[in-house]
Amino acid sequence: MRNGLQPEHPAPIQRPMFQTFDTAAAPKHGADLLAGLRAELTKRRLAAYIVPRADEHQGEYVPPCAERLRWLTGFSGSAGQAAVTLKTAAVFADGRYTIQAAMEVDETSFEIVPLKPSALSDWLAEHLKPGESIGFDPALWTIRQVQDLKTKLADSKIKLKPVATNLIDKLWAKNRPEAPIGNVQLHPERLAGKSAAEKIRELQATLKDSNQDAVILTQPESICWLLNIRGADVPHTPIALTFAIVHQRAKPELFIAPEKLDKETKTALRLIARLKKPEDLDTALKALGSSGKTVRLDPSSTPYRFEKAVGGRHIAYGTDPCVRPKAIKTAAEIKGARQAHTRDGAAVVRFLSWLDATVAKDGVDEIAAVKKLETFRTETGKLKEISFDTISGSGPNGAIVHYRVNAATNRQLQQGELFLVDSGAQYQDGTTDITRTIAIGKPTSQMVRHATLVLKGHIAIATARFPKGTRGVDLDPFARRALWADGLDYDHGTGHGIGSYLSVHEGPVSISRAGMLALEPGMILSNEPGYYLTGGYGIRLENLVLVTDISDDVPGDRPTYAFETLTLAPFDTRLVDAQLLDDQERHWLNAYHAHVLKMLEPQLQDKVEKTWLKAACAPI
Amino acid sequence: MRNGLQPEHPAPIQRPMFQTFDTAAAPKHGADLLAGLRAELTKRRLAAYIVPRADEHQGEYVPPCAERLRWLTGFSGSAGQAAVTLKTAAVFADGRYTIQAAMEVDETSFEIVPLKPSALSDWLAEHLKPGESIGFDPALWTIRQVQDLKTKLADSKIKLKPVATNLIDKLWAKNRPEAPIGNVQLHPERLAGKSAAEKIRELQATLKDSNQDAVILTQPESICWLLNIRGADVPHTPIALTFAIVHQRAKPELFIAPEKLDKETKTALRLIARLKKPEDLDTALKALGSSGKTVRLDPSSTPYRFEKAVGGRHIAYGTDPCVRPKAIKTAAEIKGARQAHTRDGAAVVRFLSWLDATVAKDGVDEIAAVKKLETFRTETGKLKEISFDTISGSGPNGAIVHYRVNAATNRQLQQGELFLVDSGAQYQDGTTDITRTIAIGKPTSQMVRHATLVLKGHIAIATARFPKGTRGVDLDPFARRALWADGLDYDHGTGHGIGSYLSVHEGPVSISRAGMLALEPGMILSNEPGYYLTGGYGIRLENLVLVTDISDDVPGDRPTYAFETLTLAPFDTRLVDAQLLDDQERHWLNAYHAHVLKMLEPQLQDKVEKTWLKAACAPI
Repeated sequence: MRNGLQPEHPAPIQRPMFQTFDTAAAPKHGADLLAGLRAELTKRRLAAYIVPRADEHQGEYVPPCAERLRWLTGFSGSAGQAAVTLKTAAVFADGRYTIQAAMEVDETSFEIVPLKPSALSDWLAEHLKPGESIGFDPALWTIRQVQDLKTKLADSKIKLKPVATNLIDKLWAKNRPEAPIGNVQLHPERLAGKSAAEKIRELQATLKDSNQDAVILTQPESICWLLNIRGADVPHTPIALTFAIVHQRAKPELFIAPEKLDKETKTALRLIARLKKPEDLDTALKALGSSGKTVRLDPSSTPYRFEKAVGGRHIAYGTDPCVRPKAIKTAAEIKGARQAHTRDGAAVVRFLSWLDATVAKDGVDEIAAVKKLETFRTETGKLKEISFDTISGSGPNGAIVHYRVNAATNRQLQQGELFLVDSGAQYQDGTTDITRTIAIGKPTSQMVRHATLVLKGHIAIATARFPKGTRGVDLDPFARRALWADGLDYDHGTGHGIGSYLSVHEGPVSISRAGMLALEPGMILSNEPGYYLTGGYGIRLENLVLVTDISDDVPGDRPTYAFETLTLAPFDTRLVDAQLLDDQERHWLNAYHAHVLKMLEPQLQDKVEKTWLKAACAPI
Repeated sequence: MRNGLQPEHPAPIQRPMFQTFDTAAAPKHGADLLAGLRAELTKRRLAAYIVPRADEHQGEYVPPCAERLRWLTGFSGSAGQAAVTLKTAAVFADGRYTIQAAMEVDETSFEIVPLKPSALSDWLAEHLKPGESIGFDPALWTIRQVQDLKTKLADSKIKLKPVATNLIDKLWAKNRPEAPIGNVQLHPERLAGKSAAEKIRELQATLKDSNQDAVILTQPESICWLLNIRGADVPHTPIALTFAIVHQRAKPELFIAPEKLDKETKTALRLIARLKKPEDLDTALKALGSSGKTVRLDPSSTPYRFEKAVGGRHIAYGTDPCVRPKAIKTAAEIKGARQAHTRDGAAVVRFLSWLDATVAKDGVDEIAAVKKLETFRTETGKLKEISFDTISGSGPNGAIVHYRVNAATNRQLQQGELFLVDSGAQYQDGTTDITRTIAIGKPTSQMVRHATLVLKGHIAIATARFPKGTRGVDLDPFARRALWADGLDYDHGTGHGIGSYLSVHEGPVSISRAGMLALEPGMILSNEPGYYLTGGYGIRLENLVLVTDISDDVPGDRPTYAFETLTLAPFDTRLVDAQLLDDQERHWLNAYHAHVLKMLEPQLQDKVEKTWLKAACAPI
């Protein structure tokens, strides 16, 4: 799945011929809510208030009770901000959401502004006067965001003022959903590959080495990884929304709603952590602040409230220390990933076989395809949840990179079209993410050429060998070279990290223009080059790959890594022009298909499906 | 020529079996000079003094009178620093110079410390006490360097104190060479492609657009480019050491020693600039500082003295505005480059032909090769100067990336060895830079494999097509992919920019891990992957390439660029394993050789040389 959070290049404005959104039918928000908010501003002598899409944990998904941006503005995109002054208001949305924002937001109340690095501060500088103050919720904006805004607004002499009461929550008393209390489960050590106690000890050793007394963890993925727990507070990512303080010389404190924990989980967790209520966090932070201890905070993910509570003098800024070890999968996690991919691949093959048979006979629409694919995954008996909303885009819908089908955009797959399906699953032993592009009927020679160029990029990543120290930015161009030669490209990264029964988008590495961190053995990333012809079709070919150490297999003496492809499902060879592949590329494709056949055939019961798989995996 | 200034990766320590340096025989400096310097420190209540290798212009070459680091420490490397406290002293030299520094520096007086980003500040923090002050010459350290040092030393409460009198110069009164007064020549508009007046007008328009009243230029390359002049103050780069102030609404001021200008040049320059003496600079800066005007300064190249003289309030920090337009060659400069490369290629071919004939018959040593190559270039009748000291490395000497031959290291080329020659010329119509690696006798299969992998990288750059916005960092991996697959790599960038009868290393772009700027049509860069087997041999294959716009030649709609290879000389096909090349690579090599033959045959008079060229350019 393409990481929708941050397009790397300025995203081109997609202009599909038709596109609507579920929320378009909902009443537009605006004037009445703004009046209430402005009354609060006046009362507090604020000239403006800013509202992010993020919640206190800065994750990709937020629970309904934290959808403040959407409540205020109607805008439901996965990234965005709003700013409200006494007279004006704006919604900031990036290029992916231009059309959606226009349909969801009441433009008589809100101006829609392209979301770029300085868009918010520029807009504020333009709409406020020197000496005026902007209110913000210190629990929702990160230390870095506040720093950046302060720096950018310093010249204009505009102040930023943390407001402890969230002004949206104050107005949203009625009908506001409850905070989620998803049940927390222990993640078995057999799957994690390391006990929580051991992970905590290692983290404490890291703190000791860095002369830090404690670290505050605010990212739920980090806490769930560290304590070997999983939750159910947001869609698609099995995390529990919690905070934790890990001490160098004392048991970690976990701030979690008791309702999320059953007795067994509580008992197990108490062995490794002190369980506290979320409302105890303030007291704990104050105690930490006045203890004189050195506290590590990650400025890019930690809300400003934590910096304020602890007090600048004792803060050691550093990255969240769970992020790197979490990204480097254990042997058990890798074994789990292989199992998950074998299981998931079989489900995908059943879907592709069904699709080929049904599309010609009865017809298939985008929503039917999504449902059928989920059915096959459910039939594995192991599906916890899909890992993100399936992207099911036929014809021109496939060219909309962040497309999600709904009743209004749904369309029948038509002969002579391409169909792009990007989907994934959460299994307890691993998270999957796969994209295939399928020819419906006979593809044009242009479709075949474009799909083959994308495949060449995919293979260039799959077969790359690279020395220790190589960063994602150094690999990304391999995926593009063949497209570039035709004057083509795609405006998203080539690969993102992926969690182990955690987030489908996981840091810290990426294969992209912005990927400045080195890849390390044990990391799992996606390999997903694409090509999008606006109004025509979308092509994306995605497998997950594991970074492996192949130093012993090369003649040279540099520590050398390579990728092992984990995802198992055939590519549509009807979209491959074998003449465009060189010997190595052809060899890779045939070897991959032989491997897929060998691994998946035993998983299939149905003779039709087996036959389909054999044909799909035939050498070219 | 590999850019020797900044190795991108930590350079591996080269351990050739034998290696000495010209200066090794010179007396080691040290104790007596240090005593004098320490007396000055005591007198001025300074706890330390720091000495850079750089002069006031921060260029690659410095005139003998500015070799302060060498005078104080004996160290003659092209990058380095020294720090002297009342009791201790250190020379900072990077990995390339570890052995050389040990041979040149008196280690009873100076500790030798690896030059890394924070090495100087770390060393100072360790050797000084809070409250103490470090003296530095504000004319020799850039604004950014001083900022960095201040930031890094702030925690230790150590102060930096500009000292107007350079303490080295004060001690070096005797035997200090005079400042150079190389003759300045006008660079014809026919070759520059644009008059100085027009360049000045365009620069003034840039200042106007940026709301800047003036810019101070301290890089001689920028000034020489802007005013269409060339000088003779340092080796290999035809620049005049000068400063200039370009005003938005007045004639530029050029601060230059009158002795450098003959009457005709003076007359011509007076039409476009106000000529002032170098000693007038202080007065001019003071006037500028008190004028209330906004002055643009490039913090990465401008010495701290300029910031101090102008005063922070009126400074607009920005890049040197000449750097980008200088890098984008005019049509006339490109035409000149083609002529220069045709002429230079013929000289290189005569050399290679001579080498093949002579090495077997009479034997050749590294120094003889250097001399003969320069003779052939001189015989073109157009050589102004070689563009850098030729790298002439046979066998293990070829593996020393920054190798320069001298009497002590000189060796006879031997059968079964590789010979690496990296050289270039300054012609008035263009600067060249070419590396060829030659098989002396029969190469081993390992040599052929390594050379072919390097060639694959070279071809991957030569044939790359890429969209507008592509940076050097995005192209660099193409040059390494084939080597990486064998567990090999090289620890330098793949390409640097090159001037037009100016510096052989020219910013702002590079093809390297650090190349974060986009390539633009008209830029000329080197394409020089390599491989170095320590103690064995070095391989580097270098051509210069021109960025061209091929948008009209690709089916896709992205603005697309490619490289046109400018350098003309055959690669040694005895070092090519055709089996390792794919069809496209073989096609490129044969097409390149056919082009070389077509272009250079008419340049050669001698029948033997013509015959050699035909054989060398035969298809494989």
